[in-house]
Amino acid sequence: MSVLGLASSRTAAAIVVVLGLVLSLGVVCNGGKTSSFVRRVEKTVDMPLDSDVFKVPPGFNAPQQVHITQGDQLGAAVIVSWVTVDEPGSSTVLYWSANSKKKKANGKITTYKFYNYTSGYIHHTTVRNLKFNTKYYYVVGIGHTERKFWFITPPEVGPDATYTFGLIGEPMTQIRHYSLRIKPPEGTRRLFVGDLSYADHYPNHDNVRWDTWGRFIERSVAYQPWIWTAGNHEIDFAPEIGETKPFKPYSHRYHVPYESSGSTSPFWYSIKRASSYIIALSSYSAYGTYIPQYTWLQEELPKVNRSEAPWLIVLMHSPWYNSYNYHYMEGETMRVMYEPWFVKYKVDVVFAGHVHAYERSERVSNVAYNIVNGICKPVKDQSAPVYITIGDGGNIEGLATNMTEPQLDYSAYREASFGHATFDIKNRTHAYYSWHRNQDGYAVKADSIWFFNRFYHPVDDSTTAEP
Amino acid sequence: MSVLGLASSRTAAAIVVVLGLVLSLGVVCNGGKTSSFVRRVEKTVDMPLDSDVFKVPPGFNAPQQVHITQGDQLGAAVIVSWVTVDEPGSSTVLYWSANSKKKKANGKITTYKFYNYTSGYIHHTTVRNLKFNTKYYYVVGIGHTERKFWFITPPEVGPDATYTFGLIGEPMTQIRHYSLRIKPPEGTRRLFVGDLSYADHYPNHDNVRWDTWGRFIERSVAYQPWIWTAGNHEIDFAPEIGETKPFKPYSHRYHVPYESSGSTSPFWYSIKRASSYIIALSSYSAYGTYIPQYTWLQEELPKVNRSEAPWLIVLMHSPWYNSYNYHYMEGETMRVMYEPWFVKYKVDVVFAGHVHAYERSERVSNVAYNIVNGICKPVKDQSAPVYITIGDGGNIEGLATNMTEPQLDYSAYREASFGHATFDIKNRTHAYYSWHRNQDGYAVKADSIWFFNRFYHPVDDSTTAEP
Ligand SMILES: [Fe+2]
Ligand SMILES: [Fe+2]
Repeated sequence: MSVLGLASSRTAAAIVVVLGLVLSLGVVCNGGKTSSFVRRVEKTVDMPLDSDVFKVPPGFNAPQQVHITQGDQLGAAVIVSWVTVDEPGSSTVLYWSANSKKKKANGKITTYKFYNYTSGYIHHTTVRNLKFNTKYYYVVGIGHTERKFWFITPPEVGPDATYTFGLIGEPMTQIRHYSLRIKPPEGTRRLFVGDLSYADHYPNHDNVRWDTWGRFIERSVAYQPWIWTAGNHEIDFAPEIGETKPFKPYSHRYHVPYESSGSTSPFWYSIKRASSYIIALSSYSAYGTYIPQYTWLQEELPKVNRSEAPWLIVLMHSPWYNSYNYHYMEGETMRVMYEPWFVKYKVDVVFAGHVHAYERSERVSNVAYNIVNGICKPVKDQSAPVYITIGDGGNIEGLATNMTEPQLDYSAYREASFGHATFDIKNRTHAYYSWHRNQDGYAVKADSIWFFNRFYHPVDDSTTAEP
Repeated sequence: MSVLGLASSRTAAAIVVVLGLVLSLGVVCNGGKTSSFVRRVEKTVDMPLDSDVFKVPPGFNAPQQVHITQGDQLGAAVIVSWVTVDEPGSSTVLYWSANSKKKKANGKITTYKFYNYTSGYIHHTTVRNLKFNTKYYYVVGIGHTERKFWFITPPEVGPDATYTFGLIGEPMTQIRHYSLRIKPPEGTRRLFVGDLSYADHYPNHDNVRWDTWGRFIERSVAYQPWIWTAGNHEIDFAPEIGETKPFKPYSHRYHVPYESSGSTSPFWYSIKRASSYIIALSSYSAYGTYIPQYTWLQEELPKVNRSEAPWLIVLMHSPWYNSYNYHYMEGETMRVMYEPWFVKYKVDVVFAGHVHAYERSERVSNVAYNIVNGICKPVKDQSAPVYITIGDGGNIEGLATNMTEPQLDYSAYREASFGHATFDIKNRTHAYYSWHRNQDGYAVKADSIWFFNRFYHPVDDSTTAEP
């Protein structure tokens, strides 16, 4: 059984990772719900670097920090990445399914320096031409330090392919929280309530933290592809120590299949997976008119074929609709730029992170403003997405407990606690969404709703939240 | 005498170049003025590449496209740039003033490729430790192809240093227009009414156009430092031909002293010059929270010492306040992000380009919006800057004649024609601003106003425009 409780399920194949940062928008519907649940605030203590969960795998030059993500636009490829530290070693991945013979894929090695840190040898190898809906085993490393993992490919892209996404935000901290469910070797749970998060919060952005984090999440991400979206803590912009290229560690370590969607940057891209079309956007790259992300998205949205992939999902780090006082309105500028497109192309749902709390919006839009008319309040709009913030936290930045009062009308449900969600696509018309509060180490369902597809079944689903 | 009519004046030392793109905002004050002047629309025809103004200087490897800009934060240095095409040649600049002996400064060479174009050898050499308010001569090139120019350094930075800025926007076209004032060798003015502009409008962004333009503007910019701000036509983002790095030609050709203001990118930076503090921002880089331009500006504005440099001027390409239907609201996202700072730090004036027309705003701000309150109209605000668009055009994109009607209240003066402006700082309290319509080759004063400094004399200057 997987430590993260996710790797063992054949249906929950992709964890959508939303790293990040939230902004806001606002006002106008009927009263939303603020959960009365209040999480016990625990002092966050760094988990010691010699903790078992950070352990380097045994053996000379053993692959570590193994992680996978979708490797093409359709789900028939996987990018396998890992790090070796003693010598470059081999970038070859050996892979096979129950009914096929073993094949090899070769990849590339990259390294980087960050201030006084030098990375290990970071391997990225894409395994292609996989069969859909098939379990594959794969091996990285050589000789005595071979390590074996597995993954399951998604069903072929099609309008009624069922699929369940797992969703987490701010994974550094999210994982920290999940770590409560790890059986510690000495039984001392408290040791694990550390803050794995944010290398950028350590002196000189101590990049060793990227390594320890990579080893820690391996137990999930070596088996299930995570879909990456860059957040503010991935920027690692540190001119005071001469590090002025944003996203340097992140972009060396985490590759995404951006080129297959015609993107020119790993920070915005799209994939199809089963019956969904997923667009990842970058809150921390330029998004104004004429620039690459803008022109890419402008050309991308008309390409979305809902007959093929009915569910249009957007990921970003900084939420547009947020009623917490933390990061309030930070997402406004990107919203101003792209929201009209989201409504025009009927995005089903937008997942964001960044705010260290949970929130689900009504279907609202705020696109009437033209300066002169003074119309600038969010209004109910059944062509608009539902905006969900899963920026679960509890890290150095603290839990966002400070909310706007009274609850803004666009906010349907909010709760200042940690958790994870699943988005369970049943067919082209229905998906079941559910958010689970992580309560003292247990997942407790706290918010759920049926989603009706905006293309096939665009009826009002905004008030159907279960009690 | 200078062809551009600017190089000969000892007072008009810096031409603020605003390349660009405009957006909008707006509403609420009393009626502004829309000029009844309507420029005769002429068909724009490309100026032939064999025109005299594009001529390569004679001699083997002769330096061409000579241009200068301020080379440090205080005005005691100048960056001299030029191109050689036959061989690298020397990057040395020989320079002297009337009372000093000749000195040498050495620089560096860069080159770039863009699709099937290979640049010449681009030299950038910084001349330092200059005396203020002094005329310097300088020579680039070797032996028979030495070329000699001159510039005048600004007065030392101080609160009452008088200084006059010349302002042009969209220089490609602006220059085209100025070219009407060039005495053509054959007397056929029409030949010169071409569109020098925008390499990006030519097949494969034909970078030869960068060279011809560089040769054309040399007659001004070899003598007067131009202060650069990148516009949309400098992005040169062309994934269809494999060119995916924004600003590649521009950033190789035009250097700015960004490091001396603690910036990590040439697209945003600041300089002081005489009694002014000039901040150049990038409409086409990321400007959201946490990213480099944001954090730089956040730290930069508190550094502005108005006792030393009373006049705080901001340059950007895409205007925030624009009442033309062209590029309407394109600047909104950046405005949402930074406008509260502009008001807080009492920026005197913001110059933008992009919209191919002229406009001057009232002092307005639109910073009360918080989603819930629905307050989103610009209101008069004497702590706010005056916003001036000098995106003079007449190029391929056409003159912006289509205006919002009735004139939005924030718009004080607008006119759909070309021109240039001067900002004439008299002392710490007063500056005289004047915009000249370029009418059939003559400069005709069309809009002018006294500026009262926002720090030393923040009285209402918004209704003092001369008739
Ligand atoms: Fe965040
Ligand atoms: Fe422009």
